[in-house]
Amino acid sequence: MMKTMTDELVDKGEAARIAARQLAKVSGGVRNQALLNIADRVVDEQDAILDANRIDLDAGRQKGLPEYYLDRMMLDLERLEAIASDVRSVASLPDPVGEVIEMRSMPNGLQVGRRRVPLGVVGVIYESRPNVTVDISTLCLKSGNAVILRGGSDTINSNTALSDVIRQAVAEAGAPENAVQLFQSTDRQLVGRMLEARDYIDLLIPRGGQELINRVARDAKMPAITGGVGVCHTYVDKEADLDMAADIVFNAKVQRYSVCNAMDTLLVHSTVAPAYLPKIASKFAEAGVEMRCDRRALSLLGPSNGGRALQVIPASEDDWSTEFLALIAGVRVVDSLDDALNHIQTYGSGHSDAIVTEDYSAAMRFVDEVDSSAVFVNCSTRFNDGGQFGFGAEVAISTNKFHARGPMGLKELTSYKWTVMGSGQVRT
Amino acid sequence: MMKTMTDELVDKGEAARIAARQLAKVSGGVRNQALLNIADRVVDEQDAILDANRIDLDAGRQKGLPEYYLDRMMLDLERLEAIASDVRSVASLPDPVGEVIEMRSMPNGLQVGRRRVPLGVVGVIYESRPNVTVDISTLCLKSGNAVILRGGSDTINSNTALSDVIRQAVAEAGAPENAVQLFQSTDRQLVGRMLEARDYIDLLIPRGGQELINRVARDAKMPAITGGVGVCHTYVDKEADLDMAADIVFNAKVQRYSVCNAMDTLLVHSTVAPAYLPKIASKFAEAGVEMRCDRRALSLLGPSNGGRALQVIPASEDDWSTEFLALIAGVRVVDSLDDALNHIQTYGSGHSDAIVTEDYSAAMRFVDEVDSSAVFVNCSTRFNDGGQFGFGAEVAISTNKFHARGPMGLKELTSYKWTVMGSGQVRT
Repeated sequence: MMKTMTDELVDKGEAARIAARQLAKVSGGVRNQALLNIADRVVDEQDAILDANRIDLDAGRQKGLPEYYLDRMMLDLERLEAIASDVRSVASLPDPVGEVIEMRSMPNGLQVGRRRVPLGVVGVIYESRPNVTVDISTLCLKSGNAVILRGGSDTINSNTALSDVIRQAVAEAGAPENAVQLFQSTDRQLVGRMLEARDYIDLLIPRGGQELINRVARDAKMPAITGGVGVCHTYVDKEADLDMAADIVFNAKVQRYSVCNAMDTLLVHSTVAPAYLPKIASKFAEAGVEMRCDRRALSLLGPSNGGRALQVIPASEDDWSTEFLALIAGVRVVDSLDDALNHIQTYGSGHSDAIVTEDYSAAMRFVDEVDSSAVFVNCSTRFNDGGQFGFGAEVAISTNKFHARGPMGLKELTSYKWTVMGSGQVRT
Repeated sequence: MMKTMTDELVDKGEAARIAARQLAKVSGGVRNQALLNIADRVVDEQDAILDANRIDLDAGRQKGLPEYYLDRMMLDLERLEAIASDVRSVASLPDPVGEVIEMRSMPNGLQVGRRRVPLGVVGVIYESRPNVTVDISTLCLKSGNAVILRGGSDTINSNTALSDVIRQAVAEAGAPENAVQLFQSTDRQLVGRMLEARDYIDLLIPRGGQELINRVARDAKMPAITGGVGVCHTYVDKEADLDMAADIVFNAKVQRYSVCNAMDTLLVHSTVAPAYLPKIASKFAEAGVEMRCDRRALSLLGPSNGGRALQVIPASEDDWSTEFLALIAGVRVVDSLDDALNHIQTYGSGHSDAIVTEDYSAAMRFVDEVDSSAVFVNCSTRFNDGGQFGFGAEVAISTNKFHARGPMGLKELTSYKWTVMGSGQVRT
């Protein structure tokens, strides 16, 4: 059957506006019920979801997509159950909507307060992971926002099946199903039009690579969260506990290297470099970490100095500003805390930076002077995460300073309104 | 002497970046001393300031600028003393920088907190009032931000004299004088270039008319506060105390009509309209308020019904979405709270809206459902003001939902960073 020609952006944009207004009146109980329904249906309707996913996977194999990419696209019962479990845990979080942030009685008797309200309509552009469809829908529903999703073309069937399930679950709870909409068009021009759609989208969240994020930062006509790129440092100070520093640096680089809060560059004070570098190098060698070293680190770690097969090569200037997302670390010897701070200011991306030290003043200066979304003393940069900060869930990690910085959870998906309760007051 | 050709935007932008980093390390005591020095010098150096102001006023008179406009440009000793007094009161406010917003101990022993930090460099585009030069500089210095000012060409001499005084006062306190810079160029193209200058400006604040604000909202490549346009409503419910409603509506319209939080449209429930409208009309008549009425209000207020010379004319459709900034009010009779809510949603600008009622449910619904920066029950919309909300000072009133909504004070000129203090923790 022929579809009537329509403009999907305008149609879904207008529907989202209406749904957002309806959702703003829906109680937290109903929004939670919608989430619990989603959790149930994602598992109950596994057949339809997994059939759709198989179509995407077959098409992906035919296109020759790489195995790691197909794995990100893949759903199975275990993954659906994990998704359902995440949805239930978001449902169990306190309702951010309606929370009174502050309330004061003024001298004239006015009660002046601020109350959290939803932002309105959130637009999300993402790539191949179908779980994002559920994660983001859940966080938006919980925070009272309508959402318009633009997923990657490789998972259009999986995303459509999941968004159908979500919409049914939402309607079943008595909330507006258009609170969650997925663009059916996978036309690339749609992204450009979304960036212009101020009238329909109040906040744009790009989840994808550097190119997408740069484009959104440059061209979006509405507020957008840009972040996700972390060139992260750990500085091992001359007063560091070197065993602790080895554990922290190893964890920051190796525990999960494909994420934005993994360490990229290791800075080591020259006083401790001769003792510390061989120590961390031997741990790195076991994990297969390649070390891209400055001249001084190289001379301390030359092939003659390593008992095992160290992967030690000279660093290029570009390495200092690279987010590796791989088992690679830049390594530089510095002569002072100031040199470390300068390096971080010059090459860092303001994401996650750590110092390892037992020196009180060095710790304080590092926390004061490093201008990043999260600054760490004697722990791993990997802790820059909504879950680790007690949010329960996150939509993104912002490196903006405006509105939200660092992990964005439910509260960061809200705005507020001032409420002023009087008994006849006028201004004089 | 010939000035070397330079690019003022690039020069001042780079200088602001450096100054912002220096200012971030300056203690609150030094920042306050800078403010107290400004307060002293603005009065001590009145001769230079008033001489410069006279040059602007003479030029303005020659250009035939209107008297009200010349009055806004004008400085005298009394005004300088009032400015100095405002600066001292900002100095006396608590330091927003470094305030710990929250701090938690996590189960693994990490102490996770959020600490307020300056935004960086604030750009401000404003028009003819030279006091803005001091107000904004003061608020930015107090909140640890560097500021780049772009004032109107009509007051370039006054603004230059004031910014010279401010820069000397800042340097004298031991803070970087480039924390406050004023563009000397009054070239109109400079505004367009400021909108593009993401690398130099972290937050743009336009203070001016609708045209400037629309342009900034559309074209600014960095976060911007847009607001200032208030189409504000007061709804007199069928359960209103009509005397209270008369006082509140009169105050909202008349006490200061040239500001964004003044009432524009009066909505009256049909049950009380016959009793209420003649009452408010006679108060309005005394103050010279013109009432632009819908058909039903008109029939209740026809010339035959008014004892005095009422200024009652039919409203046009455009009147409902007009910010009058004058002694003019739209007047409409509605049949229900729902009709009032619909009117506000359709025509309002999300700025300041009030209900007058003794009905609990009506008050609750109004507060819940009106999506404005501030919502008022039984008091005047004129209270939407940083001073009235206890901020001490404000830079603007935002009708955005992102970052800050409603009055923006010192806290709204800050961001935060996460600080994580550990003792060797790693992620597992």
